[in-house]
Amino acid sequence: MAEPQVKLLGTMYSPFVDRVKMALKLKGIEYEFLEFDIVNKSPLLLQHNPIYKKVPVLVHSGKPIVESLIILEYIEETWEDIPILPHDPYEKARAHFWAKFIEEKFTQIVRNALLTEGELQEKMVFQAKEALQVLEGELKAEGKQFFGGESVGYVDMVLGSITLWLGPVEEVSGVKIHDPESYPLIDKWMKDFTELPYTKHNSREREMLVHYLDNIRQVALAAAAGK
Amino acid sequence: MAEPQVKLLGTMYSPFVDRVKMALKLKGIEYEFLEFDIVNKSPLLLQHNPIYKKVPVLVHSGKPIVESLIILEYIEETWEDIPILPHDPYEKARAHFWAKFIEEKFTQIVRNALLTEGELQEKMVFQAKEALQVLEGELKAEGKQFFGGESVGYVDMVLGSITLWLGPVEEVSGVKIHDPESYPLIDKWMKDFTELPYTKHNSREREMLVHYLDNIRQVALAAAAGK
Repeated sequence: MAEPQVKLLGTMYSPFVDRVKMALKLKGIEYEFLEFDIVNKSPLLLQHNPIYKKVPVLVHSGKPIVESLIILEYIEETWEDIPILPHDPYEKARAHFWAKFIEEKFTQIVRNALLTEGELQEKMVFQAKEALQVLEGELKAEGKQFFGGESVGYVDMVLGSITLWLGPVEEVSGVKIHDPESYPLIDKWMKDFTELPYTKHNSREREMLVHYLDNIRQVALAAAAGK
Repeated sequence: MAEPQVKLLGTMYSPFVDRVKMALKLKGIEYEFLEFDIVNKSPLLLQHNPIYKKVPVLVHSGKPIVESLIILEYIEETWEDIPILPHDPYEKARAHFWAKFIEEKFTQIVRNALLTEGELQEKMVFQAKEALQVLEGELKAEGKQFFGGESVGYVDMVLGSITLWLGPVEEVSGVKIHDPESYPLIDKWMKDFTELPYTKHNSREREMLVHYLDNIRQVALAAAAGK
């Protein structure tokens, strides 16, 4: 049997790995998923991503590509069918802008809201809501179903990989970030995104995610208290 | 007279603006430079970059593009002559990787070394040296004159816009980050880069940069002391 051409090194719980899976599935690219123990960095991870030692790593014909946004871009350029980025340079620059905005102003902030408490956590929740407000404005201005237009694209995957975790993050950390009344277009977008065949979580998967998030929150709070 | 098609909103002292200027000059694109007062955010800046309110902003036929790395990518796709990025998706992903590495592990760290003192500053100098070590290794592995190969490209501009400031930063903040004996290939690369026609600083420009950096260092240290 021939070696699979595309391998994805990842972990079960990672929005960064999830968005790469989404792009591969959307484009119908077959791949082998190799699950890694991120704590005891495996030799294969160290070999393929010696600088950051992080997943996801996409290995295509033996060559490693790292960092989720760079991997999405690589997937787009290598398998051009079912595009996830606009071809027009200006529209593509806008997609890059929104991805960067989401990473800096939402992804990192939601993560920090999960791992903190008290005043610091309140600040994070406030900032995450500000980001949702900006994204709501963008959906309104563009009048599109998805950030990618009529179909799901790069920006949707970058944001959706985080919003799929939002309910579990809120449940575990006792905060409320998303409010359907304040962000009705984001709310509809989240529902549409959740209905896609390659983004669904079943109830067992959701339960395990909640358990995982609760664990890392407790570890982070204990570490902060021990300082 | 027709309105210039390309405008660059920037400030005199910004590596992020400088790298965009380099790409425009390398590709021979005529542009109008509009200098902005970043402290008293000008209306034009707020109009074109309402979310980040930062320069550089490239305005092409009236459409704004923001964030220096995204602007470089836009310039590359819009004016294809004299390429600054490889065409091959894997090589392009590697260029994206190094740009991200430089931004996170060198640019931010050098900035922090400028704005701090004592133990925190020592830590920043140590981390900046670690980044130079990694970049030295990459030049060695690739055996190329520039990160872009035989000619200057995207990664060179991203790194070079910072290393051009390194001497002045070291002078102002009293630290030593670059060491020609430890990083001989980086040293040669820096010299080659400085010799390019569109990267030269004359002695008056260097003196003004030192003065500017000294000012922002004093302001940052006073603010930290006042906390």
